[in-house]
Amino acid sequence: MRAEQASQKATLAIDVMGGDHGVSVMVAGALMALEQDASLALTLVGDADLIEQELAQHARTPLERVTVIGTHAVLAATASPRAMLRQGQGTSIWQALLEVAEGRAAACVSADNTAALMLLGRKLLGPLQGIRRPALMSQIPTARGMTGLLDLGANLEVSAEQLFQFALMGSVVQARTPQHRPLIGLLNVGHEETKGHSVVREAHDRLRRSSLNYHGYIEGHDLFAGRVDVAVCDGFAGNLILKASEGLASMLADTLRAGLQQSWRARLGGLLARPSLRRALAPLNPDKHNGAPLLGLKGVVVKSHGRSGVLATANAVLEAGREVKKNIPERISEMLVAHPAEDQA
Amino acid sequence: MRAEQASQKATLAIDVMGGDHGVSVMVAGALMALEQDASLALTLVGDADLIEQELAQHARTPLERVTVIGTHAVLAATASPRAMLRQGQGTSIWQALLEVAEGRAAACVSADNTAALMLLGRKLLGPLQGIRRPALMSQIPTARGMTGLLDLGANLEVSAEQLFQFALMGSVVQARTPQHRPLIGLLNVGHEETKGHSVVREAHDRLRRSSLNYHGYIEGHDLFAGRVDVAVCDGFAGNLILKASEGLASMLADTLRAGLQQSWRARLGGLLARPSLRRALAPLNPDKHNGAPLLGLKGVVVKSHGRSGVLATANAVLEAGREVKKNIPERISEMLVAHPAEDQA
Repeated sequence: MRAEQASQKATLAIDVMGGDHGVSVMVAGALMALEQDASLALTLVGDADLIEQELAQHARTPLERVTVIGTHAVLAATASPRAMLRQGQGTSIWQALLEVAEGRAAACVSADNTAALMLLGRKLLGPLQGIRRPALMSQIPTARGMTGLLDLGANLEVSAEQLFQFALMGSVVQARTPQHRPLIGLLNVGHEETKGHSVVREAHDRLRRSSLNYHGYIEGHDLFAGRVDVAVCDGFAGNLILKASEGLASMLADTLRAGLQQSWRARLGGLLARPSLRRALAPLNPDKHNGAPLLGLKGVVVKSHGRSGVLATANAVLEAGREVKKNIPERISEMLVAHPAEDQA
Repeated sequence: MRAEQASQKATLAIDVMGGDHGVSVMVAGALMALEQDASLALTLVGDADLIEQELAQHARTPLERVTVIGTHAVLAATASPRAMLRQGQGTSIWQALLEVAEGRAAACVSADNTAALMLLGRKLLGPLQGIRRPALMSQIPTARGMTGLLDLGANLEVSAEQLFQFALMGSVVQARTPQHRPLIGLLNVGHEETKGHSVVREAHDRLRRSSLNYHGYIEGHDLFAGRVDVAVCDGFAGNLILKASEGLASMLADTLRAGLQQSWRARLGGLLARPSLRRALAPLNPDKHNGAPLLGLKGVVVKSHGRSGVLATANAVLEAGREVKKNIPERISEMLVAHPAEDQA
């Protein structure tokens, strides 16, 4: 497996061109991760001039662990994923994935769009043996720690076997130790056996028969209550849940901020309470949990949010490093061997 | 149409047995609505002794506008919707719907479970001519007022024509005046034409060709940004979005409360800011927006949240009264005539 070959040095290929805030933020974020994890080395892929400019600002960082690969090809941000597939050769995202595919890097991090990353990841790395469809997972902060939610939009229509494989892959990533068996929930419109459509009910049976640590159906509110370590659903529902939650959190934050400006009493109260509120809310900061793995590929691929700043980018890079050290693709392969598909591919 | 026959007096049949907090809370909530809207009359359906006990506590309310129908049959809370259909005759929910079906009431309000209400509503009232499937809609508080979200779980798998009809029905309810043409959004995983599965894309085309005021695709975060008046999706995704949002709001509230207990500064700050925060957050209180209509039936049926207290119950009853006055079922029928189904039923 490619991820293994490079796992000693943990070289991560960073596509620095995909973020909304430009190359300097991507490079600064990657270097922040480099300083925090001494076992990492970086291959920065993109516009060499812009990368070198930013590197010059970071003289104190361990630049001996940084390689630059200049790329020139650029596709319009509006290019369709298919155009990407046909004409993407030589772009930074293509080259960063190629570093992994050809064994020079153990992981790729990109803030480019998910569909492009998924298509090129499948083309250049290929899916793991036995995987029906790769999936995108995100860490959701809940009342009791983090829950992995997948799929987030890579697979809009799924089979029961695919939902089962999402559970399996999420379980590998969420395992805190090799012995830990993360608790899995299947998102549904009710807890009762009779609820849900046929695909969800088949997946429920499949999970119950398996050796995975399956809790059963969970409902939407169970997600943020932190009832399970892994929450599984199709990519259509998962994408809507994630983005609606982001939208709600942002609306509530705006409402609270406005409320704290409504009177001198409120302003003073806000000033007094701010340090404690900041501390209480800190674990929920999405920047801390940036870095959504594309699971099921022959290699570690991590999607960074397009809007990511320096801290969020650093966290996506650190997440890629952790997944390399945990040999995620290899462990998913082992689990797939132990849980062969039960349907006709 | 049945709703019409009774629309002058606006008699509402209230199933007082379905709520988690018992008969007294349901009756108190219904009476609160009665005091607020002089055009309403109530038929309270359920355990006559318990209803009379609660009525005795409300001597000052206009009891001349209240009728009691005693029912004795009770099905276990765990009874399947199918058992409800076969053995539900004589229960309060059955009788309350029968009041509408037989023209003695203009609307039914129940806090019993949605599946039972939907099945019995279809059996006793029947769907409007041309309606593929009734749907459940809820009002979501957003950054710019209320958005109607449907379906919320009555239809887990939908056709494009069904999604179109959800848009049409939501549009009728959200119209603030007979001239107002509410803006409709179709929930999808991206704004681009190429996004989404085939059913969503067909519904998109169907909506664009129609005379409805169609905005186009919206994503999860657009929902709470209040971009549209009506947000449409299948019942599986809609149910998960709604419940996940409730769960997230509740987790954030708990986190803030805990943060405001962390130090004397935070406690003092919270005390000072509380009145303004309360005012700012008040519009988001779900009790204010309780009362989710089941749309597409020959009569007004409103689902009250099982957990509803007195205020929330009152708001569900007031919502039913508004829908009766707006002749919602008749207006949906008119819209269906203007937009005949384009697929094979």
